[in-house]
This record gives sequence, C-alpha cells and structure tokens, in this order.
Amino acid sequence: MENHNHTALISKLLTCVAACENCATECLKEEDVKMMAGCIALDRDCADICSQAARLLQRNSVIAHQYLLLCEEICRLCAAECSKHQHQHCQDCAKACMECAEACHAHHEPITQD
Amino acid sequence: MENHNHTALISKLLTCVAACENCATECLKEEDVKMMAGCIALDRDCADICSQAARLLQRNSVIAHQYLLLCEEICRLCAAECSKHQHQHCQDCAKACMECAEACHAHHEPITQD
Amino acid sequence: MENHNHTALISKLLTCVAACENCATECLKEEDVKMMAGCIALDRDCADICSQAARLLQRNSVIAHQYLLLCEEICRLCAAECSKHQHQHCQDCAKACMECAEACHAHHEPITQD
Amino acid sequence: MENHNHTALISKLLTCVAACENCATECLKEEDVKMMAGCIALDRDCADICSQAARLLQRNSVIAHQYLLLCEEICRLCAAECSKHQHQHCQDCAKACMECAEACHAHHEPITQD
Repeated sequence: MENHNHTALISKLLTCVAACENCATECLKEEDVKMMAGCIALDRDCADICSQAARLLQRNSVIAHQYLLLCEEICRLCAAECSKHQHQHCQDCAKACMECAEACHAHHEPITQD
Repeated sequence: MENHNHTALISKLLTCVAACENCATECLKEEDVKMMAGCIALDRDCADICSQAARLLQRNSVIAHQYLLLCEEICRLCAAECSKHQHQHCQDCAKACMECAEACHAHHEPITQD
Repeated sequence: MENHNHTALISKLLTCVAACENCATECLKEEDVKMMAGCIALDRDCADICSQAARLLQRNSVIAHQYLLLCEEICRLCAAECSKHQHQHCQDCAKACMECAEACHAHHEPITQD
Repeated sequence: MENHNHTALISKLLTCVAACENCATECLKEEDVKMMAGCIALDRDCADICSQAARLLQRNSVIAHQYLLLCEEICRLCAAECSKHQHQHCQDCAKACMECAEACHAHHEPITQD
C-alpha cells in the first residue's frame, strides 16, 4: 500500500469531512432544527470517521483498508439522511458522502468477524 | 443503546488509549528504537481508534457497535506486537489492549460486507 | 512533566468529554432544539479539544501545557452556554466544563503571542 | 468568519497533516530511528493539531482563530526539528510546517492569558 495510489481516495475523504462539517453547522442555523437532528448527528460521525480514515491511509496503517469498510457504511447512512432534505448544504453533503462511499467501496478489505 | 450500559467498555477503551500513548512515548526513548518501530506505529493507530470508539459510544452513535469490530481488530494487532517486548510499558500496553479487545468482542455488531 | 502528576487533570478532561458528548446527543432530542443550537456547537468543540488535551498529556507532548490554555477557554465558553439551560444534561455539562477549566487553569503555560 | 475565506488556510493545514503523517511513517523505516525520535513525536502532535484546526475552521467554530495560535506554535517546533534532517520526507515536512505556520500566523487571534 503506497500513499501515491490513494490520492484520489484521500481527496474524496477530505471533501466529505468538509461537507459534513459545513452541513452540521448550517443545519444548526435552520429554522426547523428539530427536523435536522438526525442529519447533525450523522454529519458528526461521518466527519470523524472519514477524517480518521484519511490519516490512516496517509500513514500507511495496516488497518487502513479494513477501516474503509466502516467508512463506507457511515457515508451511506449520512448520504441517505442528507438526501431527504432540500437545503443546498444537505444536497451537497449527500453527494460528497455518496462519492466517498463509492471510493471506499473500491478499496476496502474484509474484516474478520466471528 | 444506552450510555449507562457501557461504562465498563468505555473505561477499557480509555485505559487502552492511555497505555498506547504511554507505550509509544516510552518506545521512542528506548536504546533500540528501531526494534520498537512496529510497536510505535500500532500504538498510534490503536490509541486513535479506541479514542474514537469511546466517543461514538458516549454519543450513542448508530455506528458505535459496528465500530467495535474494527477496534477489536487493531487492539489484537497491537497486543500481539507489544507482547513480544519485555519493556514494562509494552507488557502493560499488551494487557490493556487484550482486555479492550475482549470487551469490544462482547459488544460488537457485524458490518455488512460485499 | 510526568504522566503520574496529571492523573487528576486527565480525569477532569475525560469527564468533560463524556459530559459534552452526552449533552450534545440529548440536546438533539429536546423539543426546542433551536434553542440548544449554541450548546450543541460548543459541546462538540469542547469534546474535541479536551480529548486532544488528554492525549497530549498522556504522551508527554512538549505542547501539552500550552494547549491547556485553549482548553480552558473553550471549557469556559461551553460552561457559560450550558449553564443557561435547565436540562439536567446541560447542568451536568456546565459543571464538568467549569471543573475542567479550573484544572486546566492550574496547569497551563503561556503561549508566545505576537 | 466564513468558510470560503479560509480555503487557502485549510489547504495549508491539510497539506501539513499529510506531510507529518508521511514523515513519521518514513522516519520509522530509517536506519537510525533513534535520531528521528524527536521528529516522530512532533510529527504526531503537529498532525493532530493541524487536523483539528482545519475542522474547527470548516465548522466556523468560535474558537477557531484562537486555536491557530497553538497551531502556529507546534508547526514552528516541528519545522525546526525536521529541518535538521536531510531525508526528503523531513525536508518536505519542514517546508509544509513552515508554510502552515505562516498561514496560521496571518489569521490567528489572541487568547486571554492570566
């Protein structure tokens, strides 16, 4: 596993972090914040996990490619929630999450589960 | 999922973070740092991932219990490496990682893999 | 700077992280989420910064004691906001933040500012 | 404070994170790891703090501009250490840290210290 092979993936992850941070902040300014509660919670988890994934890839961690499986999962959950709302920040976030999920899917490795 | 059920698990996770941070710092002071390189790298990943796991549990995240699968995996890898070294900080870290892995194992949920 | 001198401080920091994570999650469930928006935003910053502070102390970082100045500042801001609300999670969070701010204050070092 | 004004600063922060992660990983592979111990420790702190700074800016946190003061400090410390070593990863890291320190310096706000 080499850093230079992961430039595009890392870029998707960091774009997703930025979109999630922005979406959560903008959701908190919306008139109906209550409706955005699920979005705010998922944005936070998704930003945290994608940020960690980027750093594991950047340091060539042995766990990086397994971590992407988790990352894909939270990106899909966050995209599904954000896509329900018409706010531009939600639509932008849904798009970034979906593209990130697909990039993670192309690179992840299985985790041993028992 | 309720916070109060996870007190013991969160405690194991945070103990593991502290042991990994301490082990990495002490490894960097050892005479033969080269021999400790694998340990230092795994300590870092394990501290990052266990710290994130604790916070996902504390916020009752929907992804928390799936995250524990990943957490168990990195704890086992870090414990296996640390247990090879006789330094007290390595032995302490191996023990904290193994106990944390077992606590994660008891609580994790499967991740959909395809 | 030795880890064993910082047990009480690290404990305050980690208690504050847990209180902030819990408060943000509970705020998102409140009927009037809009009123809690400032609280949710500060909880997040405070949890992130206190968590990082604990880890810098655990690894005996050269920047740890300067970091506590920042940590004290965000704890005071979060405590001030949370203390405005009567919810138990807000009152608990305000208390944890205030105690953490005081512990940070007792240990921080100045940062060169120019 | 608006996100769109901080694109260049956030880019410098994320470039610095990547350079620090890479430098730490490569230092661990060097023949004389012991000589790189200070570098590895500072790389880690610098990556953690710059990553957090980027996220505070992305979420328009009230503490973001004060945080940059701390960020500048750790970037200068890391640059000073890395610049002592002739490895390409150290030279690259020193350059990224120095540019990041200057970007932080241009945007930071004072912290109340007493």
